[in-house]
Amino acid sequence: MNPDSRRLLVLAEGKFSPLRSKTANGAIAYLRDRVVAVIDSTKVGLTAQEVLGYGGDIPVIRSIQDGLAFKPTHLLIGIAPPGGRLPASWKADIGSAISAGLHILSGLHTLLTDDPDLVALAEKHGVTITDYRRIPPESEVIPKASWTTRKAKVVLAVGTDCNIGKMTVMLEVVKEFKARGLKTDFIATGQTGMLIRGRGIAVDSIISDYTAGCIEKEIDQSVAEGHEYIFVEGQGALTHQAYSGVTLGLIHGSMPDAYILCHQPTRIKDDYGVTLPTLPAAVAMHEQIVSHFKVSKVVGVGINSIGLSDDESRAWSARIERETGLPAIDAFRFGAKPLADALLRHFSFPSNNLPA
Amino acid sequence: MNPDSRRLLVLAEGKFSPLRSKTANGAIAYLRDRVVAVIDSTKVGLTAQEVLGYGGDIPVIRSIQDGLAFKPTHLLIGIAPPGGRLPASWKADIGSAISAGLHILSGLHTLLTDDPDLVALAEKHGVTITDYRRIPPESEVIPKASWTTRKAKVVLAVGTDCNIGKMTVMLEVVKEFKARGLKTDFIATGQTGMLIRGRGIAVDSIISDYTAGCIEKEIDQSVAEGHEYIFVEGQGALTHQAYSGVTLGLIHGSMPDAYILCHQPTRIKDDYGVTLPTLPAAVAMHEQIVSHFKVSKVVGVGINSIGLSDDESRAWSARIERETGLPAIDAFRFGAKPLADALLRHFSFPSNNLPA
Repeated sequence: MNPDSRRLLVLAEGKFSPLRSKTANGAIAYLRDRVVAVIDSTKVGLTAQEVLGYGGDIPVIRSIQDGLAFKPTHLLIGIAPPGGRLPASWKADIGSAISAGLHILSGLHTLLTDDPDLVALAEKHGVTITDYRRIPPESEVIPKASWTTRKAKVVLAVGTDCNIGKMTVMLEVVKEFKARGLKTDFIATGQTGMLIRGRGIAVDSIISDYTAGCIEKEIDQSVAEGHEYIFVEGQGALTHQAYSGVTLGLIHGSMPDAYILCHQPTRIKDDYGVTLPTLPAAVAMHEQIVSHFKVSKVVGVGINSIGLSDDESRAWSARIERETGLPAIDAFRFGAKPLADALLRHFSFPSNNLPA
Repeated sequence: MNPDSRRLLVLAEGKFSPLRSKTANGAIAYLRDRVVAVIDSTKVGLTAQEVLGYGGDIPVIRSIQDGLAFKPTHLLIGIAPPGGRLPASWKADIGSAISAGLHILSGLHTLLTDDPDLVALAEKHGVTITDYRRIPPESEVIPKASWTTRKAKVVLAVGTDCNIGKMTVMLEVVKEFKARGLKTDFIATGQTGMLIRGRGIAVDSIISDYTAGCIEKEIDQSVAEGHEYIFVEGQGALTHQAYSGVTLGLIHGSMPDAYILCHQPTRIKDDYGVTLPTLPAAVAMHEQIVSHFKVSKVVGVGINSIGLSDDESRAWSARIERETGLPAIDAFRFGAKPLADALLRHFSFPSNNLPA
């Protein structure tokens, strides 16, 4: 099926909100014309705009059954619970979507295509189940160190926490680079990015020995296609105790020429109650952890200003620019121009990005 | 089968040597009485002692067929190639061992129990295949942050490179702690350690999202059993571009109260040709990467003095002690007393290991 003709019904039961329905929100932000409705029985009658602050009049509805009226072609599992497992109660819902003829798109850790009941049902109804976290066997690779001879510039999004806007800022900078006519690519490393980009690799589902190798392989493919600026979606955070290993695998697998650091000024603690690092500490940490191999700098800060007014967001940008000496902006709200400018300026100095 | 009655035939074809046959060497060092012979057709007629400098008169033989004369009960796949995959030519060899009635012990990434031919053959001959890298489904966990209330002391081995002696130094310190009557446990995180300890988890085979959670779960179990000093086998290195993510997952999953840093003074570069970090840099890096959560110090250096004389090894210890201010010793050769002393001294100061 042509991706552009998809009509997505998005399942976000009980979790549709700015911070708790990451995949749903990514679809609404970047595939807005393709989303027909969002299922969350606790918010029936609201629109995406009312819940998220974007997404226009996409309605929130009660159930898959109600969603069928919108003639969807796909059910997208639009939330990603911690650890990514399938809530038991959902299996029946997914089954009923399949029975109604919907294709299934899932980013859950629990692979739906491992469930013989769902697979049999999908076969019976002639629909497909896409597990974004299904890792192809040819992903069992370790890095070749292709970064040592790479000409293309690679930018990685990192953050002071998980789920803080890394994919979004990369998509916005990519939009800006493409608008300037540059040969630019986005490498998706999570299910939402993969849904939007149409390809990629769910880095957090790779066997940990192969994390770095897998991301290098994606970059190598993009370089071979002629892309000169490659933006890699980040995952996790070096300071997040559950997912820091994923983050470091991504850093050393991509060996970025520059970072964009993502931060939400109003977020004080992570989901473990650990206070987020200061921005100068986070900048130093990311530059240090790659310094054994090469020089890589944090070149800009991507601000996530959910819940703030435009004025408040701008005030935070100014404050963070003073604190870090780096351009800082909510690119989702105001565009990525200052970040794109900073990256191109950074790349124009031959003394940047030298081997260590 | 009682582990103590195992008779291990060790397959290390073409790779039996101090540095290229890690699992074989671990078995010879710590299960010496259980190893009947080592297969490597390029070194037939030598003994383990001649090849490794330890292992006594364990003979090197040509083939599995020749090994049957030693009445083995198990074939141990004794080498771990980069990435861990099964060389295609080995399948026939493993099949012939199964046909001869041997159980199979494997630490390869490629799971032998995924091969229907080998599984069928094992069933036919009534033998078992143990894949140390088979991860049980209940390992899909993220950390609970149990370190925040943990009373037991956890020590993690880290290193300036992979395959540098992290398991060995932990086993030696454990031996020393046990000799002092302390309630001590060893947590194996790789196939060789698992073979020796009889349990554990192959951390490098876990889906990366669960690395930290899995190691915490192993520690929690050990704490529940009443162990007060828990030594965690390290994996990879923060400065190794393929496996740094595994290392960081292990660091943040174990949240160690102290590190032992492993180093081989004669090794200049890693397998990518990247120069190893200096010891002060490595000390700083490991203390820094956990400092967001707690204070943890490198308390001693484990020296791998393969190929050096005892005098040369002692000279390196003295030099490294001057450079780092930390006790440094080849514990495999000279015992772990100075490291054990340093750890107990470290733990006796209440001001150490405070939350950050």
